[in-house]
Amino acid sequence: MSWDQVWLDINIATMDTDLSTAYGAITDAALAVKDGKIAWVGPRAQLPEFDVLSTPVYRGKGKWLTPGLIDAHTHLVFAGNRANEFEMRLNGASYEDIARAGGGIISTVKACREADEAELFESARKRLNALGKEGVTTVEIKSGYGLDTDTELKMLRVARELGKHHHVDVQTTFLGAHAIPPEYKDNADAYVDLVINDMLPKVIEQDLADAVDVFCEGIAFDLAQTEKVLTAAKQAGLKIKLHAEQLSNIGGSEMAAKLGAKSVDHIEYLDEQGVKAISDNGTCAVLLPGAFYFLRETKLPPIELLRQHKVPMVVASDFNPGSSPLCSTQLMLNMACTLFRLTPEEALAGVTVNAAKALGLEDKVGQLKLGMQADFCLWDIDSPAELAYSFGVNPCINVVKNGQLVHQ
Amino acid sequence: MSWDQVWLDINIATMDTDLSTAYGAITDAALAVKDGKIAWVGPRAQLPEFDVLSTPVYRGKGKWLTPGLIDAHTHLVFAGNRANEFEMRLNGASYEDIARAGGGIISTVKACREADEAELFESARKRLNALGKEGVTTVEIKSGYGLDTDTELKMLRVARELGKHHHVDVQTTFLGAHAIPPEYKDNADAYVDLVINDMLPKVIEQDLADAVDVFCEGIAFDLAQTEKVLTAAKQAGLKIKLHAEQLSNIGGSEMAAKLGAKSVDHIEYLDEQGVKAISDNGTCAVLLPGAFYFLRETKLPPIELLRQHKVPMVVASDFNPGSSPLCSTQLMLNMACTLFRLTPEEALAGVTVNAAKALGLEDKVGQLKLGMQADFCLWDIDSPAELAYSFGVNPCINVVKNGQLVHQ
Ligand SMILES: [Zn+2]
Ligand SMILES: [Zn+2]
Repeated sequence: MSWDQVWLDINIATMDTDLSTAYGAITDAALAVKDGKIAWVGPRAQLPEFDVLSTPVYRGKGKWLTPGLIDAHTHLVFAGNRANEFEMRLNGASYEDIARAGGGIISTVKACREADEAELFESARKRLNALGKEGVTTVEIKSGYGLDTDTELKMLRVARELGKHHHVDVQTTFLGAHAIPPEYKDNADAYVDLVINDMLPKVIEQDLADAVDVFCEGIAFDLAQTEKVLTAAKQAGLKIKLHAEQLSNIGGSEMAAKLGAKSVDHIEYLDEQGVKAISDNGTCAVLLPGAFYFLRETKLPPIELLRQHKVPMVVASDFNPGSSPLCSTQLMLNMACTLFRLTPEEALAGVTVNAAKALGLEDKVGQLKLGMQADFCLWDIDSPAELAYSFGVNPCINVVKNGQLVHQ
Repeated sequence: MSWDQVWLDINIATMDTDLSTAYGAITDAALAVKDGKIAWVGPRAQLPEFDVLSTPVYRGKGKWLTPGLIDAHTHLVFAGNRANEFEMRLNGASYEDIARAGGGIISTVKACREADEAELFESARKRLNALGKEGVTTVEIKSGYGLDTDTELKMLRVARELGKHHHVDVQTTFLGAHAIPPEYKDNADAYVDLVINDMLPKVIEQDLADAVDVFCEGIAFDLAQTEKVLTAAKQAGLKIKLHAEQLSNIGGSEMAAKLGAKSVDHIEYLDEQGVKAISDNGTCAVLLPGAFYFLRETKLPPIELLRQHKVPMVVASDFNPGSSPLCSTQLMLNMACTLFRLTPEEALAGVTVNAAKALGLEDKVGQLKLGMQADFCLWDIDSPAELAYSFGVNPCINVVKNGQLVHQ
């Protein structure tokens, strides 16, 4: 065989759901790469002969390879920070005090509107570097702190640029309907019209988004408004997804699932009917333990129902300045297990195979099997569970992206 | 003036409690170093003239300097890991199942007894590197996974060696009375005798420990056994401290405080009488939010009482393989605020000025004021609260240890 690189002396958590082992594990395995794709993977003993003189061989010293991690829900392009508000709240300020002091999401919107693209790019690049060092090879980034046409487009352009200039692949999501901006506070329907009739056509025309998202909640957009946005996005051929059932159960997940949403995200308040609906429609459940932790929520997402109905569970950081200022996918693995009681295998599937599914990329990434993108990490661990169990000493030894060893 | 280095264009969170500003902050400040110590600190406008041609000048671009961080409670020398046990529990195994499978603290004890010093040193060095990159310049490390004389001494030797070969200063604590080893399970008193009459004299003779600690709890050592160990340590001139009131209130903190303990640690179950006792005796309260998080505790330490009685609150990682596998002091800043509702200023004091007090090092480190060790960090932040508010993108730009710029 003629390959570009071969990995030996490794164990592989392939996350290939066709294998019957936990983690799709192959111990004493081998993996070969050709043209940026997985050209062979299996037990070392079955590896075909190859030209050992001309093929670079990497040896993993008995450690573990996994697919590159995928963070399927972030808001990592933003300006400013909300440390002041965090400090005020801990010093006893009320939400009204904070609002009067210009805090809340509006402070981030203001900062994003004022920031130029270079500034947004540079702060986001640092955050993407941090995720990249943790073994993340694909990340989703949402807009949603512009809430006007220019700034929403600006955020998406920055996210797209990041993807071009960084080894981490970026999937962009247009979240114009993230909150009702102050200019429309008594007229949400008019803002929804702006999203659909002004922002969305420009987003599409400039090819700035892979998907469209809405925050469907009492404090944001109602079911009818949400459906209008998602329907318009779907008709335009974009993937759709939803922030839903975070604070109450208003049926957003079920509606989105029936429209073919790739994922519904947060879903702490989702009930069995909603779980059945997302199960029936092949919609993923994106769990966001960082926001749960940071907001000190007590209502857990319906993990057991999701298991019963075989809904693919995704784990993501929801990294954002307001409710999850935690830029770490590795930490989310621990939080998913500690706070949501996922097993380490479920958590790892949540940042690999299931995360790929939530982004509609399941044919390209998230599993180490024949024909998939050669995106993978070598970890200094003796069992895959270690990735979720401990945190702080980054076990990521190597990252390979599209078959290229990333130096970081 | 003749100095070794001068820092300009900075704001300083001195954490000097004699200053009336929050964080002991001096904005538009300057700081000078001579012979590894702070030779001058104050407002830039008051900086005396110095020889600008011969003195290295560092410019902080308007960012913030703080004292180097201090993690005053860790168990970072250990062998093995407990990922298997973590995974078993999340898959529904009972504590009995795990014990039968060789899990629990005994698995770590077994691994530590079997490990050689080089192996213990190398794994601990990686962990210390991770803390060092976060801006930690002083760390406390406990023994307590040997539970026999040879292994306890071995752990302490490794901790001492780490301090010699790493820029992070290491304070060592002998915690022979961490758990009752299997060999003594029906005879804890005999084990206490071993600790006092065999281990402790050797620890002292070989100068392996700066302090002595005991786990005082129903599942570990009772009040009388604890008092015996602490009294022996005190008589030998060692500092004393205690793991106390973590799972129940049995009076350990009060007893230790009256013996002059530098700190009592965990203290979720401490009542007002106990808080008064530690306040009266100048004992610090070490809060360990990582263990609280990882064990999913619900009983909060008595923060409001500690504030009322002006007890210095310390924040530490308790990094250990069983109850806090989180090797990150920065994460603890966020957890102290999020889970324990400390203010960002209290949290930062907990890893600087108060942490120094808990280690009996308050005359050397933990504040940036005249005569203190020149241990400090430059952070890419616009306000000190950012250190506690966000996590993941390490804002540490530079670490200076004993006046030397650390390259890491
Ligand atoms: Zn979100
Ligand atoms: Zn401890």
